[in-house]
Amino acid sequence: MSSERLIYLPLGGAGEIGMNAYVYGYGAPDKERYILVDLGVAFPDMDGTPGVDLIMPDIAWLRERADRLDAIFVTHAHEDHIGAVAHCYGDLGAPVYARPFTANIARRKMEEHGQPEDAVITAMPWPEQVSVGPFKVGFLPMSHSIPESAGLVIDSPTGRVVHSGDFKLDPTPIVGEAFDPDLWAEVSKPGVKALVCDSTNVFSQHPGRSEIEVAPEITKLVSGASGMVVATTFASNVARVKSLAEAGERAGRSVVLLGRAMRRMIEASMETGVLTDFPKVISPEEARDIPRDHVMLIVTGSQGERRAASAQLARGKYRGLELKQGDLFLFSSKTIPGNEKGVIRIINQLSEKGVDVVDDSSGLYHVSGHANRPDLERLHGIVDPQMVIPMHGEHRHLREHTKLAESNGRTGIVAVNGMMLDLSGNAPKVAEYIETGRTYLDGSTKIGAMDGVVRDRIRMALNGHVTVTVILDEEDEPLGEPWCDTMGLAETGNSKAALVEILEADLNQFLMRSGDKTRKDDDKLEEALRRIVRQTSQVEIGKKPEVTVVISRMR
Amino acid sequence: MSSERLIYLPLGGAGEIGMNAYVYGYGAPDKERYILVDLGVAFPDMDGTPGVDLIMPDIAWLRERADRLDAIFVTHAHEDHIGAVAHCYGDLGAPVYARPFTANIARRKMEEHGQPEDAVITAMPWPEQVSVGPFKVGFLPMSHSIPESAGLVIDSPTGRVVHSGDFKLDPTPIVGEAFDPDLWAEVSKPGVKALVCDSTNVFSQHPGRSEIEVAPEITKLVSGASGMVVATTFASNVARVKSLAEAGERAGRSVVLLGRAMRRMIEASMETGVLTDFPKVISPEEARDIPRDHVMLIVTGSQGERRAASAQLARGKYRGLELKQGDLFLFSSKTIPGNEKGVIRIINQLSEKGVDVVDDSSGLYHVSGHANRPDLERLHGIVDPQMVIPMHGEHRHLREHTKLAESNGRTGIVAVNGMMLDLSGNAPKVAEYIETGRTYLDGSTKIGAMDGVVRDRIRMALNGHVTVTVILDEEDEPLGEPWCDTMGLAETGNSKAALVEILEADLNQFLMRSGDKTRKDDDKLEEALRRIVRQTSQVEIGKKPEVTVVISRMR
Repeated sequence: MSSERLIYLPLGGAGEIGMNAYVYGYGAPDKERYILVDLGVAFPDMDGTPGVDLIMPDIAWLRERADRLDAIFVTHAHEDHIGAVAHCYGDLGAPVYARPFTANIARRKMEEHGQPEDAVITAMPWPEQVSVGPFKVGFLPMSHSIPESAGLVIDSPTGRVVHSGDFKLDPTPIVGEAFDPDLWAEVSKPGVKALVCDSTNVFSQHPGRSEIEVAPEITKLVSGASGMVVATTFASNVARVKSLAEAGERAGRSVVLLGRAMRRMIEASMETGVLTDFPKVISPEEARDIPRDHVMLIVTGSQGERRAASAQLARGKYRGLELKQGDLFLFSSKTIPGNEKGVIRIINQLSEKGVDVVDDSSGLYHVSGHANRPDLERLHGIVDPQMVIPMHGEHRHLREHTKLAESNGRTGIVAVNGMMLDLSGNAPKVAEYIETGRTYLDGSTKIGAMDGVVRDRIRMALNGHVTVTVILDEEDEPLGEPWCDTMGLAETGNSKAALVEILEADLNQFLMRSGDKTRKDDDKLEEALRRIVRQTSQVEIGKKPEVTVVISRMR
Repeated sequence: MSSERLIYLPLGGAGEIGMNAYVYGYGAPDKERYILVDLGVAFPDMDGTPGVDLIMPDIAWLRERADRLDAIFVTHAHEDHIGAVAHCYGDLGAPVYARPFTANIARRKMEEHGQPEDAVITAMPWPEQVSVGPFKVGFLPMSHSIPESAGLVIDSPTGRVVHSGDFKLDPTPIVGEAFDPDLWAEVSKPGVKALVCDSTNVFSQHPGRSEIEVAPEITKLVSGASGMVVATTFASNVARVKSLAEAGERAGRSVVLLGRAMRRMIEASMETGVLTDFPKVISPEEARDIPRDHVMLIVTGSQGERRAASAQLARGKYRGLELKQGDLFLFSSKTIPGNEKGVIRIINQLSEKGVDVVDDSSGLYHVSGHANRPDLERLHGIVDPQMVIPMHGEHRHLREHTKLAESNGRTGIVAVNGMMLDLSGNAPKVAEYIETGRTYLDGSTKIGAMDGVVRDRIRMALNGHVTVTVILDEEDEPLGEPWCDTMGLAETGNSKAALVEILEADLNQFLMRSGDKTRKDDDKLEEALRRIVRQTSQVEIGKKPEVTVVISRMR
């Protein structure tokens, strides 16, 4: 047996839906050459990551081995696969390979963040292969909810791995290539070691539906509408945007694209030839001069994002356009778990305006971009790998996907972030556990998820904040009384006097009584003052606030 | 026409699901005598109400008129109907009427909050009526997902109003009274002015399903399980808890009730005779000595609440019990929108333990407690009121319910919180708009939603916090350099030096250059220092923090 090995190591995406980052390596242990598949982001929320702008995988492990990283391959242009490429390029420095549409989006991102656009290299689909280090990698066209998605055929001296990327088995995807079972069978014929496979929809029991089913339903709905029509969907779902625009055109409506992401995606599709025909669009300014029953807006913000076009239109005027009684608003999208409140807020605001809302509850106006359970089984069958390694899922998805593979007599394994697998043998073997985690883009800096920064923010949000200022003279005697400022706390509590005054009185009393030993020692004094603030606040208002103590000594 | 009028005024619950509070009044304008129907809470979240304990309707309007409030009627013991009674009793002082089970729960709450238990008066069902002021009020038994729910028959000199309460049309509710169409028809026969009606499930197209349908499915599932079985549901759904316990008993399992709410609800049901037979339960300590395939836990926390039994069991050991590979966890509940992330977190934690999770996606193990669209139409038909006034819903529900009534030739109106309707005529007339809002229970104090307290907390969570301390001597000259403390901010920014040091340098530079006029004026100085902190932080870390400036003057 050779001392060289083929490894698989998820740094993100295995144990969550989001921030995908999968390392493959080949070589002698700890001397492997690496490639990285995808480098995406996840999105923050108030619950766990208030104030954070983006969540990225912690790539410390890979950064320390950047000299052995030969390339980054991006399967498609969804944010959870491409979103961290520009933010991490400085740390990794490896060339980024992607198909034309994805590369177009990647270059826009590189440019936006001051990174070299020419680090992005356009790759052609299979049978072309890119040789990097010990690997040969080919992009295998696959249908998904964005143009030019691809699986990867990763050849190493130890054998072939197929990395599915995000996919569905769509014979008629409207835009981009249909799933081609013959091509996948041909690629798999020489034998596939491992199929590393999308798990998102493993709990969906029925075969997935094609993108083409949606268009006639949208057309019917739009042609029956009498006021203005607004439709929202994921901007990257170019096929859907096209179906929506064509439905508008067929109903004699002028189409307006609202939202930066929407225009950017259509632009990239046109530039790369992914989209050859698209109805003529007009500007919001032009739309204002057209009767509202001749206008259709296609807008961003299907997940209820506060700053996107949907939310702005729901709140009031946006770019001179305003919704009214009798207009129709279509969510041609599903609500991602966690975004329900934002979406419902918009629906209620639209209801207040008298706008009729059609959402995805009927199942008519949206189809998923991911393979359902029977589709997963079908791909397992076509590729017929030695082992199935589920990825792109929370733990429950990975586990269920593994069980599904095993129920068909295949070898599967639940491999979560940080679990390095050795794929060299006939079955996957856990080689090592790597420390992984999350890095936050916070404003313009990066912070670690465990740095305590966000924990402090959450505590201030839950408990409020008190600043205590104490000035001591050369003899460590208090100069005047201690001073308190509160933020995020009730002004008065149970005793009906101002909380600040009660705190100051208690602190002063303590200071007057305290001994030299306490007053000379910054740490002791600070701790004592903090404890008093927390105790008194607990009695007064039933909360224990976060406390900043500032001790100034006149020396 | 009489100068007296009958009014309806929602203070909570009309425009949201939660914190129900509906005022009815009769008398000359501004001299009406009032009754209040329900006084509930809503639940806070990190998004909009971090650190808040409970959300209650702002009852300022009613408090100012408390001398004319004759009674509070509570339709049932769900928190969104009963949760604020004890918290607001001190402000309102009116007697609280409820049926025995609801009264039992109300008294427990009064006691817990140091309020007089005897303010709660037990009422008997229709045909009994309570006379209060100009009103006669009767409790009309109705099926819902809690025992002894009731609609209210509210008779005034101007006519009869039927307030539906929360309801479903269940002929076989397992615990409590079945819906009795003959009784409702009889009550409606003399003519009903207005039906004020639950709107929760107006978007559900099919007739609602009976509680009795769930039991056989649960029994099948539990009898097929091999490890420990855990089931969670809403503690107040006593019928469901009973079905779960009986399924356990039938499968030869000893039943453990875990969670305070679960035990409290069963206790109240027993005390009031609502529940006469319930399988024998054992303690968690006893369960530890029984083989795990002979144990069934029925636990709180179906909505993913972090401190409830479900979350604790998902995280690790709880009360000496620990879940393992091969155990079964059943969500006999639906996830309320907004709670998805918490529930999914638990499911993934259970998945990591190898526990099999069955949720409500199959529709087999849960039925709703609210009337669906066809059921609403059926009740409209039975009561046949002059007008339908939708309540208990977000704006979208109220609007849809109104449209539904109108589509059947009825008069309906969307009346949101604060909209006072005069029901004296043949159609509802908007009499007045009252300022309404939300009051937060925050620790042990109440704060107004618009006080700015919670806004400041959210800002600290998003932006972090900086404390600036400056000491000036008798001549307004700085004594030493300004001092900064940060909380919830990255330690270093773009220039790689400590953020605090850069802030202090910039502040010091400003102080040295600033003129007497600025330094003498606390407000000006504070504003200038704040601006510098925000500007420098923006450059360094791309964030504008909240700032507390403390200026100490040695005088």
